[in-house]
Amino acid sequence: MIDLRSDTVTRPSPGMLEAMMHASVGDDVFGEDETINRLEARVADTFGMEAGLFCPSGTMTNQIAIKCHTQPGDEIICDQLSHIYQYEGGGIGFNAGCSVKLLNGDRGRITASMVAQAINNPSDVHKAYTSLVSLENTANRGGGACYDFAEFHNIKQVCQEHKLKLHLDGARIFNAVVANQEQPAAYGEVFDSISVCLSKGLGTPVGSVLAGNKDFIRKARRIRKIFGGGMRQAGYLAAAGIYALDNNIERLEEDHRYAQQLGEALVKKDFTGEMLPVETNIVIFEVKGRFTPKELVATLQENGILSIAIAGTQVRLVTHLDISKEMIEEVIQVIERL
Amino acid sequence: MIDLRSDTVTRPSPGMLEAMMHASVGDDVFGEDETINRLEARVADTFGMEAGLFCPSGTMTNQIAIKCHTQPGDEIICDQLSHIYQYEGGGIGFNAGCSVKLLNGDRGRITASMVAQAINNPSDVHKAYTSLVSLENTANRGGGACYDFAEFHNIKQVCQEHKLKLHLDGARIFNAVVANQEQPAAYGEVFDSISVCLSKGLGTPVGSVLAGNKDFIRKARRIRKIFGGGMRQAGYLAAAGIYALDNNIERLEEDHRYAQQLGEALVKKDFTGEMLPVETNIVIFEVKGRFTPKELVATLQENGILSIAIAGTQVRLVTHLDISKEMIEEVIQVIERL
Amino acid sequence: MIDLRSDTVTRPSPGMLEAMMHASVGDDVFGEDETINRLEARVADTFGMEAGLFCPSGTMTNQIAIKCHTQPGDEIICDQLSHIYQYEGGGIGFNAGCSVKLLNGDRGRITASMVAQAINNPSDVHKAYTSLVSLENTANRGGGACYDFAEFHNIKQVCQEHKLKLHLDGARIFNAVVANQEQPAAYGEVFDSISVCLSKGLGTPVGSVLAGNKDFIRKARRIRKIFGGGMRQAGYLAAAGIYALDNNIERLEEDHRYAQQLGEALVKKDFTGEMLPVETNIVIFEVKGRFTPKELVATLQENGILSIAIAGTQVRLVTHLDISKEMIEEVIQVIERL
Amino acid sequence: MIDLRSDTVTRPSPGMLEAMMHASVGDDVFGEDETINRLEARVADTFGMEAGLFCPSGTMTNQIAIKCHTQPGDEIICDQLSHIYQYEGGGIGFNAGCSVKLLNGDRGRITASMVAQAINNPSDVHKAYTSLVSLENTANRGGGACYDFAEFHNIKQVCQEHKLKLHLDGARIFNAVVANQEQPAAYGEVFDSISVCLSKGLGTPVGSVLAGNKDFIRKARRIRKIFGGGMRQAGYLAAAGIYALDNNIERLEEDHRYAQQLGEALVKKDFTGEMLPVETNIVIFEVKGRFTPKELVATLQENGILSIAIAGTQVRLVTHLDISKEMIEEVIQVIERL
Repeated sequence: MIDLRSDTVTRPSPGMLEAMMHASVGDDVFGEDETINRLEARVADTFGMEAGLFCPSGTMTNQIAIKCHTQPGDEIICDQLSHIYQYEGGGIGFNAGCSVKLLNGDRGRITASMVAQAINNPSDVHKAYTSLVSLENTANRGGGACYDFAEFHNIKQVCQEHKLKLHLDGARIFNAVVANQEQPAAYGEVFDSISVCLSKGLGTPVGSVLAGNKDFIRKARRIRKIFGGGMRQAGYLAAAGIYALDNNIERLEEDHRYAQQLGEALVKKDFTGEMLPVETNIVIFEVKGRFTPKELVATLQENGILSIAIAGTQVRLVTHLDISKEMIEEVIQVIERL
Repeated sequence: MIDLRSDTVTRPSPGMLEAMMHASVGDDVFGEDETINRLEARVADTFGMEAGLFCPSGTMTNQIAIKCHTQPGDEIICDQLSHIYQYEGGGIGFNAGCSVKLLNGDRGRITASMVAQAINNPSDVHKAYTSLVSLENTANRGGGACYDFAEFHNIKQVCQEHKLKLHLDGARIFNAVVANQEQPAAYGEVFDSISVCLSKGLGTPVGSVLAGNKDFIRKARRIRKIFGGGMRQAGYLAAAGIYALDNNIERLEEDHRYAQQLGEALVKKDFTGEMLPVETNIVIFEVKGRFTPKELVATLQENGILSIAIAGTQVRLVTHLDISKEMIEEVIQVIERL
Repeated sequence: MIDLRSDTVTRPSPGMLEAMMHASVGDDVFGEDETINRLEARVADTFGMEAGLFCPSGTMTNQIAIKCHTQPGDEIICDQLSHIYQYEGGGIGFNAGCSVKLLNGDRGRITASMVAQAINNPSDVHKAYTSLVSLENTANRGGGACYDFAEFHNIKQVCQEHKLKLHLDGARIFNAVVANQEQPAAYGEVFDSISVCLSKGLGTPVGSVLAGNKDFIRKARRIRKIFGGGMRQAGYLAAAGIYALDNNIERLEEDHRYAQQLGEALVKKDFTGEMLPVETNIVIFEVKGRFTPKELVATLQENGILSIAIAGTQVRLVTHLDISKEMIEEVIQVIERL
Repeated sequence: MIDLRSDTVTRPSPGMLEAMMHASVGDDVFGEDETINRLEARVADTFGMEAGLFCPSGTMTNQIAIKCHTQPGDEIICDQLSHIYQYEGGGIGFNAGCSVKLLNGDRGRITASMVAQAINNPSDVHKAYTSLVSLENTANRGGGACYDFAEFHNIKQVCQEHKLKLHLDGARIFNAVVANQEQPAAYGEVFDSISVCLSKGLGTPVGSVLAGNKDFIRKARRIRKIFGGGMRQAGYLAAAGIYALDNNIERLEEDHRYAQQLGEALVKKDFTGEMLPVETNIVIFEVKGRFTPKELVATLQENGILSIAIAGTQVRLVTHLDISKEMIEEVIQVIERL
């Protein structure tokens, strides 16, 4: 099967597995896993941050950040399609006791002026107190849409004026960096915290790193403990992360090119309705006419291709490290035949 | 000043005050305040429920109900204008650890089919588990809009099919009952819990009653304790509630008529934009042209009339027990002169 | 029945009821109830604090203070007999998400050195972070035991060294003030917040005031809203508080003298085991021999006296505003006859 | 250095590493990691349970179980030395909003009659509602003390009578099983959930499995997602668990024998005060005379031995997979020389 359901399904390459096998590990609860320490420092440095924290998942890095930046009863401003709101099991309420102010952005991206209007008046006890803005880059449910970096600066300014923290869900931050030729370190100047996922486009089996300043990471480490996210000799997983940072970033361009090709093939079909612009490695399109989304997914599966129906009306395809040129060609042939 | 900011500003009439001061009271924490016991039974009975619980506010009765019907991490379906989401200080997250699925209803009212579509698939751990639907009747921010009772039954059916609880924020339930000549007891057949406010249209100084079945009220009593909502000799307040149930329900028609008259006067003015239909005691209208909402509020205040600017673009006027025919005439004259 | 179960069972005197009936009230949610405003200022001033907040119960004032001083996951140091731990429905966990470090003090009173030893090392993420110390004066379950004021200063010093907040549950603070001829304003120099109950020894029907500095009370007001503790025209209750502050403080000496007399009568009986020293208005003693605690309570009830069995082995009697000299004489006669 | 600080410091043996690197993995969020699936089934089966859930740590398995068995505001009965209370960062309050009823057991072990007395009366809203009993076997802070299995049955009976759930923190359950020649499957008849740690005595780098019935594990999976504990291709870690179950259980006897030998050497020294009976792989003893605990730890470290000072007055040594016969002989020589 050609698995285009998600970029989370990748398996380590032989080189990555080799790196894992030879990792130098220790008990990270005692701070003695040198591979984890190296990975945390590396990610922090890459994004212009002081410190990092290795966690079992991007959901955990996001949830820890949300918790550290807020008080129970506070309100978080984010796009209505945000992963933190849509796909983290209700964690904003469960873990942080917070509410959301959901904005109707453009493909998952919100603007500084939308943020400015969404901030509650702090003196009115009827309204939840706004304390955090959370962005997602690329925006998964927005079809891998990328922010214009200038808008980050605009949003940052609104946050500073109103004493709000600014978090980035960087589940696919490297896709944005590569697609827009950004300097990763510039992110550290804008955001108070960044969740960097290693198990999506980068292709590691497990893990995300939360980056921020030292005080923040100290608090984050405590929350990680409370969630039970502290692991012992997890250097085996961290080693995969270091390998990926060394080897798997530039090649994301390939994933983006393949996604473009899939989009071009699909857009010609009569069953394809509105398609979100393909900016990175995600293709999301409405399904109309002959197929319902579920039927299209089933038909693709009969042809050896796994995809996902989302939001009732759309189908999503995601390219990643384990998808080769040949596979894309095969998928395109199948699409053309449909 | 003629105070049209809210129906919460009423002061007890001499008769109500008399009833309060002759109340027979006891320590309600020991269950020994007979006036409270009578009020709780009376409200429960009125709405076809088994039991009631007297609380210091409608926010508390709503928050207790939300807590009792949900688990942390669950999701609550409600209109985006709901009081429970907009005006209870972020309590849904703080007190219950829950998320919201906000629906874009018609003047604060949602439909059975909207509810059906908003329920999350319970087997997907990414999505918060839907466990509660909360309605508001009348819908304050919808301009006092009333539900069609048939829609309650439709929504109830969806809830039963999906094992969801159904709560009613009845902050102004008597306005709905009077305006639509409903049988209060019919509410008990539809809802798992109802929050009935005594300090709005009914004119008591303090208090709301939460109604439900016995098991629910047993749980609710425990949560009330945890919030610190258990009071001692609060029969003085409960006596006002009993007096109001005896004397202040039918007269709500007057409030509705006065609100109609205000609406008719306002709609003729050039500064009045879209006005929500006036179904009960609330008039909400867009302000345009000569005035901003804040300027209109200030101008009215200079003329002895208190009102409130809401949502940035609207002004709200609310009629109530302390607003007389003469006052309404005066307000209309002021409006005409503007 | 002569009700010695608790000092919460008092009913307002004619004078207090008169004061209530003539209260000038307004909508406190708008800050317009002048009687509440006066009471809050009065209590704050009495205890050397900047501001006050009127709440429906002492449980609420305690829970709000705990919430405002802590973060979820923090630990609170208190005596194992504390009301906040024993009798507030598990609110420390529910409302604040905090743990307790329970100390085995002397009749509910802990010392500075006990506090110093109980503070967790903040750098170890395994241990909950200590952020608050909570004391109770008088200590209810310690038999109304009073702190030596000098120990407050010692504890304060430990708190300042370790950046801990210090809260006082002053459910019966006036009993301590009167019994030890303390200056109430001295409390404000030691504590970050004080919960002052009006419905116990002071004899009002409902209410407590939380006192602290302005920033703290601003936060507290927000939490009160979230709990649903904001009331509308509650000046009727506040008026009783002002009346009580004017009239019912010095007379607490009587309650203390009566409790002494009850203690002296009881200590002569063969069924009386160890009795806690009677310092204020509470008598707690072990029951042995002829009676179990429940049997003694039942026997007293047959003789027209209400008391409470606590902790499995003890009986508690509490004197208060509604207990006269004649009643005490009658109770003593009954005790002597047993 | 000979590291006796904890049995968490072990590194995988070549055989275990080999098993890890050849694991067949998949995306566990889609349920497609067959190695994880096999491990979960294996652990569940071993302990007579229906289903299992692989998590990043024993703290997470404990916290998930506590959350699933309770409601916010509930009370959990456990020994005061319990890991869940002492070393999980205040998670009981943070994650579950629950209180603790701490019992003063015998070396971390409580009895059925202690449990029976600690249950709160459910009808009194002042007291937190008791819903869960949590035991720990072996009890870490009790010096690796083991429960008598018959007492489990006694406690189970009390739990059933009062509708309480019963959880086991089995961080070192295999040490108990081996030391007392128990049938692991017998645990499933007693407990509603068991947390089984793989990274202590069993020697894997990361992971614990939570075992229970299917409904419980379904709920647990949702909470794991909310904590961010869902991992992707974590079969590499699970493979180590399967290897450990095949190879590292019976050898725990060695650890126990070595701990015995360490205890015997230590007990002869003048600086050794009271020592807890050495039942499994943990040696805990008071330090007196010449050394403070910290000084003894430092002296041992100068001699190449790592140990830990705990609770202010004690030192703890733990034997494990990476401690050989030769190392023990060396440690004993050092001790004899001191």
